[in-house]
Amino acid sequence: MNFLEERIMKDGVVKPGNVLKVDSFLNHQMDMKLLDRIGAEIKRRFEGENITKVLTIESSGIAIACSVARELDVPMVFAKKAQSVNLDGEMYVAEVDSYTSKRKNLVIVSKKYLSAGDRVLVVDDFLANGCALQGLISLVEDADAEVAGCAIAIEKGFQEGGYRIRNLGYRLESLAIVDSMDPDTGSITFRTQA
Amino acid sequence: MNFLEERIMKDGVVKPGNVLKVDSFLNHQMDMKLLDRIGAEIKRRFEGENITKVLTIESSGIAIACSVARELDVPMVFAKKAQSVNLDGEMYVAEVDSYTSKRKNLVIVSKKYLSAGDRVLVVDDFLANGCALQGLISLVEDADAEVAGCAIAIEKGFQEGGYRIRNLGYRLESLAIVDSMDPDTGSITFRTQA
Repeated sequence: MNFLEERIMKDGVVKPGNVLKVDSFLNHQMDMKLLDRIGAEIKRRFEGENITKVLTIESSGIAIACSVARELDVPMVFAKKAQSVNLDGEMYVAEVDSYTSKRKNLVIVSKKYLSAGDRVLVVDDFLANGCALQGLISLVEDADAEVAGCAIAIEKGFQEGGYRIRNLGYRLESLAIVDSMDPDTGSITFRTQA
Repeated sequence: MNFLEERIMKDGVVKPGNVLKVDSFLNHQMDMKLLDRIGAEIKRRFEGENITKVLTIESSGIAIACSVARELDVPMVFAKKAQSVNLDGEMYVAEVDSYTSKRKNLVIVSKKYLSAGDRVLVVDDFLANGCALQGLISLVEDADAEVAGCAIAIEKGFQEGGYRIRNLGYRLESLAIVDSMDPDTGSITFRTQA
């Protein structure tokens, strides 16, 4: 097990409905040392990829994306969720389904902050059905920028997001892939990664 | 002028309606070196205050709060905005008016992450009418924790938030206080601070 898997085993809580609570260290209370270790590991995996920008989506991706961007010494941009948007041509816009709120959100990024020539690393805390990640990827491609890859802290391997993104040909690195969880015993099975 | 005031002069854009756009470096695209310098300066100002936790509110406060928490070597907690909340007793809840969306939001923090004995530094990117900051302060006090102080990147000195918070007796440090702005000339006047 790597450091993140170990931390999930120690402090993660499995709830019914395939919910994994990691809010004591990753998405409500944040352990900065853990975040920085995640940032360093993601940097290591994408070394040599000439990344020029890190892109995430508000809110819980921001902290991890900051740590990654600091390590890579590039700016971080976070896409904003909007209920509606004045399409004045200054924004890239994508529509995403929200898994948690069960409604459609628009995600937007100012055209000033993604450009042709950028090599973008898309970062988020969780990957489940992949809708948020696909929205972010479409923002990058609307800007004629290049997706250098996607980096995720925790992938729910039993949902289709990881399969879908890899199947589209994107490089996707997830530091921990949960293949199954049992709310009765609290047990978590991680996918063995090379 | 300090480093943040200089950066605002260089890259901030004054818009009609007393809007100061700093989204190229502070709240949409993030300059990590600037954020870390803000974190270090806030640490310096609250040295010796025995802070145990940094509290902010999603979304744009998260990145600055991360830099501050890293410097202070304490956890960061971000309050979440909710339209409604199942009051099951597990959350501290405060109601705040949103200046940008003109509606009331609830902000919530899990009771697990604020406790009596905590000395909390409340951090945000902007201070205008002070509603968000007052909501965060009330969450800390609901937890019987102590407000060690408030640290803000940019205070709009011509709105009442700063006066209100200081008048309540809280220590409030704003790295840049904008006393006036002119959208026609783009000029910005900062308050002289000791």
